[in-house]
Parts: sequence; structure tokens; C-alpha cells
Amino acid sequence: MSKKYSAEIICVGTELLLGDILNTNTRFLSKELASIGINVYHQSVVGDNYERLADSVRLALSRADIIITSGGLGPTYDDITKETVCEIMGSELVMDEEVKNTIVGFFQRMGRKMTDNNFKQALVPVDGVALHNENGTAPGIMINKNNKLVFMLPGPPRELEALYKAKVYPVLSSLDSGNILFSKNINIFGMGESAVEDALKNIMKTSLNPTVAPYAKDGEVLLRVTASAPDKASAESLADKAISDIASVVGDCIYGIDGESLQNVLVKRFSEKGLTISTAESCTGGLVSKRITEIPGSSSIFGCGICSYSNETKMNVLGVKKETLESFGAVSAQTAEEMAAGVQSLSGSDVSVAITGIAGPDGGTDEKPVGLVYISARYKDKVLTERFVFGRSKNEREYIRFLASSWALAMALKITDSFSPAFHE
Amino acid sequence: MSKKYSAEIICVGTELLLGDILNTNTRFLSKELASIGINVYHQSVVGDNYERLADSVRLALSRADIIITSGGLGPTYDDITKETVCEIMGSELVMDEEVKNTIVGFFQRMGRKMTDNNFKQALVPVDGVALHNENGTAPGIMINKNNKLVFMLPGPPRELEALYKAKVYPVLSSLDSGNILFSKNINIFGMGESAVEDALKNIMKTSLNPTVAPYAKDGEVLLRVTASAPDKASAESLADKAISDIASVVGDCIYGIDGESLQNVLVKRFSEKGLTISTAESCTGGLVSKRITEIPGSSSIFGCGICSYSNETKMNVLGVKKETLESFGAVSAQTAEEMAAGVQSLSGSDVSVAITGIAGPDGGTDEKPVGLVYISARYKDKVLTERFVFGRSKNEREYIRFLASSWALAMALKITDSFSPAFHE
Repeated sequence: MSKKYSAEIICVGTELLLGDILNTNTRFLSKELASIGINVYHQSVVGDNYERLADSVRLALSRADIIITSGGLGPTYDDITKETVCEIMGSELVMDEEVKNTIVGFFQRMGRKMTDNNFKQALVPVDGVALHNENGTAPGIMINKNNKLVFMLPGPPRELEALYKAKVYPVLSSLDSGNILFSKNINIFGMGESAVEDALKNIMKTSLNPTVAPYAKDGEVLLRVTASAPDKASAESLADKAISDIASVVGDCIYGIDGESLQNVLVKRFSEKGLTISTAESCTGGLVSKRITEIPGSSSIFGCGICSYSNETKMNVLGVKKETLESFGAVSAQTAEEMAAGVQSLSGSDVSVAITGIAGPDGGTDEKPVGLVYISARYKDKVLTERFVFGRSKNEREYIRFLASSWALAMALKITDSFSPAFHE
Repeated sequence: MSKKYSAEIICVGTELLLGDILNTNTRFLSKELASIGINVYHQSVVGDNYERLADSVRLALSRADIIITSGGLGPTYDDITKETVCEIMGSELVMDEEVKNTIVGFFQRMGRKMTDNNFKQALVPVDGVALHNENGTAPGIMINKNNKLVFMLPGPPRELEALYKAKVYPVLSSLDSGNILFSKNINIFGMGESAVEDALKNIMKTSLNPTVAPYAKDGEVLLRVTASAPDKASAESLADKAISDIASVVGDCIYGIDGESLQNVLVKRFSEKGLTISTAESCTGGLVSKRITEIPGSSSIFGCGICSYSNETKMNVLGVKKETLESFGAVSAQTAEEMAAGVQSLSGSDVSVAITGIAGPDGGTDEKPVGLVYISARYKDKVLTERFVFGRSKNEREYIRFLASSWALAMALKITDSFSPAFHE
């Protein structure tokens, strides 16, 4: 009997409807439920309003096996989650002496005065269970009735997360769903989302287990491969088989499996190989060095970055020749190459990357438009220089800079044979 | 005729149901709608599944005047928002030649190959309007029909937020024909959100027009002052009166009105004063130079940034003395001051800022904990050096680096008498 359970999350709170706070509870619960193979098909948010909350709960009960609510368990008159849910479930609320004593004890320890409304928190449905909350006065509530499993959790994330782990997870993870889920992420760079999907459409459409889902972000594509199997080893083996199929099609553009980011993979590969890198940046203004130094431990592979925004810095610090700037301009393959050579020599690093371009919105010409970027990578005496035109529209300064920084990281990986993306012109 | 409108937000995306990403779009849209007096009673999330999405849209149409969806406008087969919503609204989709040309142009500029599925994005409902998306290929869609106003926006937050501001806000803010709304933003740095709220509680609670709403982000507080009046001049005058009241309480920490960011204000003020700046960064790894060069036109005030991550670079490029590093360590006021002097002398800039610290997660000691940062600013011969301990918990590397970069920008403003934040020790 391997049933696939579905859950629905309802967050109760006007502060969410007003956008005052980010809904981290829904994300936390969704991630937890996914990790134990419970499907979440709906998430919703309603205010502390009896009718709208009651409608949302009825709708959830009509379409999910498990309902988890967050918020509205406090002592004040507008905290109505427990009262509303219990009314719909036909569960009478009675004073729970144990919970009442816990609350009284909590106030004594805190030296705070109790008010009558605090006792509201000790009301527990006769056919339900109070879930002791280590971090606050409002206990959670569980009701298992009419083939529906309902959990009501407090709203503060610290309380909700601790209570989920202590009291909800043990119940849900023991539901006999038969299978566990296992995911791996494939990191792709150098190919757009639709091109990836087009290349992989046969695999993506036909593969039901594992499933393959693409996520595009910041010029990269992440493919999540999720396998379902009775145990982790079998699930992982299913996932690995799919990854190998995918790699046979778009392998050139895969820079990592669960690699997280280009800079993370770069720091890892360079550390393994004992290589060091330095950077010389014009239009990206330090973004490449910022991304590399995001990674803890990057100091073992990176020591020097020059942001040579002006021609003076290009000449005085990096040793770019005046004639090069005059003959070819600051945005040219020649300048990029001299910048890379300059920072490599200044820092004594094995590898260097240099970027010069026009990030806009101004400064573009017909010959050298906004988005034109030259990137040069050096590894000892080996040189790789590429010309790019980035940008989807005007005023795409940050986008152009970010893509340029990504290609610089990718080219540093490429010149050291750590990754071979297809280059577009 | 002043009707109170209600809106419902539906986010479409399996990545939200799996808890892979935080739902920042819902928060953004809710906050925006609240600021113009539109009630949001329901927020929901569904996956890329026709039936569940269709049910959610029908439910939303039954209870709200305005529906805003996010996500599911991409080119791939699982992007179904537009098709589903248009079917329910009875709006036939037809190829829009203008949108098609925009997409073709985008691919041409990028030198990328189009695939058939990209044309799906050029389908627009016959009775709807395509909303041009500056930041991506998927246009937004607006349908105004049967007394319902429906907006479909792309999922990536950068695209959604820009499109909301450019195309949705103007429509929604003009719905209430009685008054126009006018907002100004006060930029506050150097004071936490609760301290700001506490200092301004009388103004914030009693002022109904204009309303004053605080937004905390990345160590700054933004106060949005929104006034409602029959014409722009009257609304602006109401807003300015409130801003002047607020400035009389927290003026020290106000670095701009509609200033956008510390780096934006810095580039503006330095340009006005004809000052130049250079940077020397250790733990921030280029983040300060990256932030300065984010701003178009920054090349007139900034030409040189040194990311001296290693001691060698501190000595060889910036001229930090070996004895200083040996006696006081790389993370010390003395090193910060020599770095600032070094980059000022190397670049010939009027002002310089230098940062050295321990961003973690490793490298901290009892004496020099993770989060310890020294920042030194120089203006000609004037020196201002401050010691900070940033961070809320361990592994707050990016948070520490970002706050350090913000204080560096703030100190460059302070030393040039452009801003006087209160300093904490």
C-alpha cells in the first residue's frame, strides 16, 4: 500500500497580505514536505478573517490529505485559526489542564503577568493533540480525523520550524508513501533555457522517474533531476543514469553537478589543482573578484584583483601600453590581453582573467555598441580571448556586467581544462 | 465614486511548491498594492498544472476585482499561465507581430539561435495588451474584461518588479479617479528598523495622509511617504511636510530622498563636488568598487580599485608595510589606514576608502572574531577610521561583506561632509 499523499499549506496573517513580511514558513514547509515525498499542490495565504479562513480550510480539506496551517494561534481576539479549523472539523475545544499549567509556568519563569486571554491558548480539541512548543506559549495542534491530517502551527518561523521538526516530521515521515525522493542539480552555462529544452526534449518529456525540471536564472540553466525509489541508493542510481543521458547531449555546457555556482566550482577546481588566479576588471568593476571571494576559502586561490576603470590605472598599475589604448581603444581584444598579462605578472598567479567592455547605458557607438565586451584568460603563456555582445535592451548595465563576469569565470575554467562551454560569437 | 478594489495574487511555479525559492514576488506585489489602497485578501501558489491553475484562476475571478499572476510565461511546454487564463477569460490568442519582432531582434543581438517554442511568447490575447518587458523575452499581458482586470507578469523578480512599476502601477494607481497618489522615499542608513520606528512612532501612527511605511533591507531602512490629493502639487506638498517632520527626528541618518542607494548618492555628490575616489578592499573582495561602478557615469569619479586579498598584494601594490602586518595583523586599523593611503597615492584620487576584516565562516579568534572589520576613509590628509563587528550569527559571510561595503560608502560620504550617520562601535 504505497499511497502518494498530498498536502496543502495555509498561512494566516494580515502581515503577509500587506507584504510586511516574507513568507518563509511556506518555503520551509514545502521544502520539508518535498524531501519526504509529499506533494504540495497548493499554498495559500489568508487574513485573520473568519469567513475567508473558513472557505480556505474547506477548500483545502476538499483537495488534500494533509493540511498545515501557520499563524493565528496567539492569545488575542484576532487569532482565530484554532477556533475556525476546529469548528469546520466538528472538534469541540476544551481546556487542557496540562497545557494550562505549562503556560502558567512559562509566565512565572518570565516574571510576566498573565491576562485572561492567555488561557485561550490552553484550549485543545477533544479529538486532537496539543504539540508542545519549546519556544513560545502557543502549542501546536494535531487532528487526525475523517482521513484528514491537520496540523496547526504557530506563525513565528523559529517556533514553527522547531515544532515541525520535533512533532510533525516524525508523524509525516512515517506515513507509508513507499518511496523516498532524491534530487541532483545539473549546472549549465553557455546555453539558453529554450535551447537546453529543445536539445533535451525527448529526455525531459518522456522521463517520469526521474523527472527533469529546468530553472533559468542569471544567464544559467539549472536542471533538477528528481528520482523516486524505495531507498536512497536506488533513487540516486536512477538520477545518475538520467544525468549521464543528459550529459551525452549537452555535456559541453555542464560545469557542475550540485555545483551551486561558477565561482564555487572555480574555487573548488583551482584548489584541487593547486592553481591561483588574479583578475583585471574594467566594465565589471570588481564583480568577478567579488564573486570569487564570496566563496569561503577563496583566499587560497585568489590574492589580487585590479579594478582598472580608468586608462591611467590600466597603464600605471597593469602596464597596458599607451599605444595599445590609442590604436585599438580601451575596449579591444588587445587591451584585454595586456590587462590579463599585466595582472598575472603583478600577482604571480598561474591564471588571470581580464574584462573590458561597454556596460552602458551611454558610451556605445555603431562600431562598439553597448554590451560589447572583450574577455581574455591567460594560463601561464596560453591565451584565450573572446568577443561578446551582451544585453537584451538598453539600460541593461547590471545584466551585461553579470554575464560578462560569468563568462570570465567560465573562461578561467575553460583555459585550465575544467569546463568546455560552447562559445557564441 | 471612490470604490475600494480587491486584488488576488496567484504565483505559478513548481519551484515555489517545492520550496526551492522564496516567494518574494507575492510580498513585492502585496506591498505595492497596499501602498495604493488596494486590498489583498488572498495569495496563492499553484504548479504548472492546467486543472489546478484553472481552478485557482476561476476562484480568484469569483472573489476579486484584480488578478495578478506571476510566472509561467516562458517559452517551454510547461509554461501555461497565458494559455490557461486566456481560455478561462474567453480570450483568443493570436500572434502579435510587434512582439514577435522584438523577440527575433533579441535573439539576433545575442547571436543566439531561436527555437520554435520562442514564438509562443509572441502570442497575445485579441482583447488584451502586451506589456513590453525590458528585461526578458516574455512580455506581460493585461486583459480588462467583464469588470475584471487581469495582469500576467513574468516570474523572475527583476522582470516582474520592473514591469509592475512601468506598466501595472500606472493603471492601478489611476483606478481611484478621485485622487492621485504621490510617493517619496527617505533613505536611512546607520539606524535599525525598530529604532527608526520607535523614534518616529508618533508620526507614523498618527499620519494617515501621507502614510509612512518602513521597509528594511540590506542594513538600510527606506521610509515610503505616500500622499493622496486631487493633484500632484498638493500631494507633493503633503509629502514634503511629512519628510521635514521626519528629518527633524532622524535627519542624521538620512542620506537621501529618492536616493536609491548609497552608491548612487555617492556618485551624484562626488560628481557635483568634482571629487574622485579609489578603493582598497580585502574582505569585501571588490564589492565596493562593484557597487560604485553599478552607477552609470561613475567613471568620472572612480578610476582605480585594488582588491588586495593577500598580504603580498597589500604590500606590493598598496605599499602596506611588512612591519605593520607583522605587528598589528592584516585586520587592524593600521593596515586599513595604510591601504587607504596606498590606493590614494597610487591613483591620485581625492578620497579613498579601505576595508579589511574577517568575513568568515573561518578565520575568527576570540580577539578578532568573524565579523570584525576596520574601515578607513581618507580625504586629502584627513583620516577617519572605524572598527565594526558585523554579523548576526555565524556563516553570515555575505551579510558581513555587504554591511562593510555600505559603511565604506557611508564613510566616504561622511568624510566629505555629504552625510553624517551616527556611528556604532
